[in-house]
Parts: sequence; structure tokens; C-alpha cells
Amino acid sequence: MNEFEIVRRISDELPQAPPEVLVPIGDDCAVLRLGERDWVAASDMLVSGHHFKGWATPEDVGYKAVAINVSDVAAMGGVPRFVLASGGAPDPETTLRCFRGILEACELFGVYPLGGDTTRADALTVDVAILGELFAPPVLRSGANPGDLLAVTGDLGASAAGLLALENGTSGSQRLIRKHLRPEPRVVAGRIAAGLGVGAAIDLSDGLASDVRRLCAHSGVGCRVHLDLLPIASDTRAFLESLGRDPGILAATGGEDYELLISAPEPTLDALAESVETPITKIGEVADGVGVFFRRGDEPVENLSGWDHFSS
Amino acid sequence: MNEFEIVRRISDELPQAPPEVLVPIGDDCAVLRLGERDWVAASDMLVSGHHFKGWATPEDVGYKAVAINVSDVAAMGGVPRFVLASGGAPDPETTLRCFRGILEACELFGVYPLGGDTTRADALTVDVAILGELFAPPVLRSGANPGDLLAVTGDLGASAAGLLALENGTSGSQRLIRKHLRPEPRVVAGRIAAGLGVGAAIDLSDGLASDVRRLCAHSGVGCRVHLDLLPIASDTRAFLESLGRDPGILAATGGEDYELLISAPEPTLDALAESVETPITKIGEVADGVGVFFRRGDEPVENLSGWDHFSS
Repeated sequence: MNEFEIVRRISDELPQAPPEVLVPIGDDCAVLRLGERDWVAASDMLVSGHHFKGWATPEDVGYKAVAINVSDVAAMGGVPRFVLASGGAPDPETTLRCFRGILEACELFGVYPLGGDTTRADALTVDVAILGELFAPPVLRSGANPGDLLAVTGDLGASAAGLLALENGTSGSQRLIRKHLRPEPRVVAGRIAAGLGVGAAIDLSDGLASDVRRLCAHSGVGCRVHLDLLPIASDTRAFLESLGRDPGILAATGGEDYELLISAPEPTLDALAESVETPITKIGEVADGVGVFFRRGDEPVENLSGWDHFSS
Repeated sequence: MNEFEIVRRISDELPQAPPEVLVPIGDDCAVLRLGERDWVAASDMLVSGHHFKGWATPEDVGYKAVAINVSDVAAMGGVPRFVLASGGAPDPETTLRCFRGILEACELFGVYPLGGDTTRADALTVDVAILGELFAPPVLRSGANPGDLLAVTGDLGASAAGLLALENGTSGSQRLIRKHLRPEPRVVAGRIAAGLGVGAAIDLSDGLASDVRRLCAHSGVGCRVHLDLLPIASDTRAFLESLGRDPGILAATGGEDYELLISAPEPTLDALAESVETPITKIGEVADGVGVFFRRGDEPVENLSGWDHFSS
């Protein structure tokens, strides 16, 4: 039983949703109508030893727990507004340092911390729940249509490269390490994409190879992704090649980029690219059927997959 | 540095609250105005080895994580509506069992699960964030006035007795064990108390001795609590006496009763007692000053304190 199977089984046992719930569990966020506004809600948990090792400071962990939730809101086209943050740590000093990272991220992303909980735990553990506000209809995973193009924001593989740098104790890759420890979710791009009415979006947390399959499964479509088109920054490429790693494969499978994968007709993607500072790179096409194919030049690339929290 | 000190230090570093935040961090819940309605929000985390041992099943832990959040909403006079639940567990089966307990509690309390996260963790860890709806002004910790009486819902010490039964492997105390593992928060009493305009309330999670101090500190008042008046059920009393424990002391210091402590003028408490099925028992008086005094007959009882997650 992997993480998807757990979520599927839990979803099967859900009660009938009350009328305020416009989109239930299963997307990046749920969507709620409260008063006249629509809101998105999600939560994400980070656990020491699984999501991070000793190279992440408690401040880094607190920061990242907020950032990955902000990314879920960004993927729906929402504006992050409020968080609740619970932290378990071996000692009070670690707790306080972790909450300083939480507050730092809240300030950076304009999110207000409503409260939370502190407790003792052997492994530093942070869970953040977020409420975001929608100013346009939410962008779901299920709206990709055959004929759409697929595009990503920013660049891929930098976080995976930063993780390798941390694991290897390599210095001189500060941007890559920062992309891993202190991701900056694409809130502006997500909000503008929602305003333009893009078809579908998902944030890249578990790696493109996993997340594009998820988006296609929700939409009932297939796709082709061209590894040669993936945006890989020159420092990412140089660092990965210095380790003998394949940058294209890492960009397709490495997790935690917290970029957005967007499906939309080409003119909509062009309009998005003109409206945001973040580069928007077309990487593939949505097609009829259910196959998700990766290609490099004319060659198929098989068996690409991202991260699963219970099988890895 | 204890839990209170951590919360105080974090609170000192909070940014300016946006206009929707009517009550920030520091009460049982924060209060938010979203549209025309007011909402309360809170989160609580449970960690294996600290909040529970091997005698609690994963279903129990999931249930309780929801219940303790429902109790926070009840203390504000709110109606629990939505939760986000994140669970970390050593294996997928434990995760699934924990989420079944979460869903069971959601159904019992009429709460809808919006989503959450599952991940691997060495120790079973559950964090639940809750949104509750207010139909009357929220009941805060800060509204106790000299001349008010203090009252509690239900009975005290049963959860602490149930915990002792579990730790000692004692059979034949099923109600006490159930009070510990499957608490039923006082949502109806809290909602009616809010409608009656009681002065202040707090839920009893860390033990009366700690929680009454917290309520008095928020209100800038003192109080006298009479241990002889604490409502202790006959099975609780008999079980604790069989272990050579003092029922009055356990009722004052044992945590996790998830009853409500309410401060209000006597006529308001009488009206509450007539309106709810749950017994309402007067246990003391609010007074000027800052002293919190416990008495048994005419004798002062010193050094009573409840649970602190970092000093115990």
C-alpha cells in the first residue's frame, strides 16, 4: 500500500460533503465557500529523518513547512492568508527556533499565523495547515484537455541538486541549497494563471514524473513530455554533471522543486509568460488516452518516477 | 523554558494581525471574520510516546486528535465544522487505521474532513487543524469578573483514572478508560453557554489546576477553588481509592478531562444548568487580585499543578 492507495482508501470512506465544500479532498487543496468568498485549505507535515536530515536547521524546517503549504495554495491560484502551525521537538529551544522559521516564512509570504500547538517529540515534526483566498475560480488538477500544452514555471532539478550538495557536504552551491531549504512558491504565477483561466495546475512536490501522472489521471488524459525541453539552470546542470548524474533525469524525477506544472491552450500560456516575471517553459503536450510518455529526442524514456512517502 | 514561555516568546514576534483576525493566538482558538460569519481556528498535535503509549490503538489516537480540537472549539462556544488532518506513522497500515479513527470522530462530531497529509514517521504523530463556526460572540478566557462563580461540566478525574487503569493493566474500568481514550467534548454546553453570554471559558486539557490559572491570568483576576466541590464520579473515586490515590487531588491535577471550566454570574450558571443535559457543578469563586487558591474545607492546598509538555 503506497501513499496514493492510502489516500484513495480514506477518500472512499468520506462522509457526504456539506454544501460549503466545492472541491473535497484529492486536489492540492480543498475549496470552501465561506460567506461570499471562496477559500482553499490544505495541510502538510514534515518529519525529521524522513523529509530532512541534520543539515537542515530547525529554522529551515519551520520555513519550509509553511512554504510547501503556500505552494499548494499557489497551485489552486489562491492567495495564502492564514496558517495554523504545530511543532513537536525534543527540547524547547528547538521548538522556538522552528517557530522562528515559521514566522520568517509567514512574513515573507504575507501569511498570518493564527495559532497552533507545541509539544515534545523525539523527532522534529512540523505540521502546517493553511487557508488561502481565491479571487478567480480555483485551478484544479482535473481540467487538462487534449490539445493543451504543458508548461512549468522557473527551473527544475535545482532542489534535487541542492539536496545532493547537502548530502555530499559540497560547498559553493549556495543557490541550489537555498532552492532546497528555502523554496519560494509561485504565488503570483498561480494567481495570474487562475485569472487567465488555465485548464489545470499542480505544484511539483514529488517530482515532475509523479506529478504529471497525477495531473493527467485527474483529468482523464495522457501526455508527452520532452526531457530536452525541461528548464535546467546552468549551475544545476554543471553541478549534476560534476557528480556524474544526468541533469534531464534528475529534473524529471527529483522532488521538491515547488514550481507549478500548468496545462492550458498555447495562447493562454503565452499570455501567462508575458504577464509574469518567472520564466514559463513549454515542456510537452496533452493528448487523448491515458499514457504518460517521456521522450528524449526521438527516444522514449521508460520507468521514470518521483517520490512516494511509503515506498521509498 | 516551558510551554507557556515558548508560546509567550512566539507571540511577542507576531506580525500585525490583518483586519479579519478578531482574536489572535493565545486563547483556545483564534477568531476570524470571513464574510458575514465569525469562525474559530485551532490545531493540536499528538505524539506517540509522549501523549500516549502502546495501549492506545492507532484508531484511538486518530479519534482523540479530532476530539481535542473539537474541545477547543467547544470552549469558544463554536460549532465544529471542518478539519485538516495530517498523520505520520511507521507503516501504511497504521496510517490507515489512524485515519479511520479520525473519520469516526468526524462523523460523531459532525465535522467534515477537508484533507490533510500522510507521511512516514518513526512515532505515530497526528496533527489536526479545525475550523468552527460561531453563532454567538466567542467566549474568551479573558472575560472572568470578580463576583463570578466558577463551574465545570461533567465530572473530573475520570480521564486520569482511566490512564492509571491503562498503565496498570487494570480491567473492569471501561468507562474510565473510555473517558481517557475517547473523550466527548462539550460542544452543546459550550454553544449554549456562549448564547447565554457567560464571562469566560477554557477547556480542561492540562488539568484544572493549570487551566484555572490560565483563565484567571487572561482575565486579570484571582479565584478560590474548593476541592470538596469537584464533581468526581463514584467509579472514579472508588478506583482511585483502591490504588491509594487521593481523588480530589487527581481531579484537580489530572489532565485530559476535556470538560469546560466556565466563569459567569450565578444566575447565568443556573440558566446553563437548566438548559443542558450535562451536569454543571459550581466549584469556586472569582475574586479581585491575582491569587489562585485551592482549599479543602478550611485548609489551603498548596503546589497543585497540571501538565506542562516540556517540564514533565
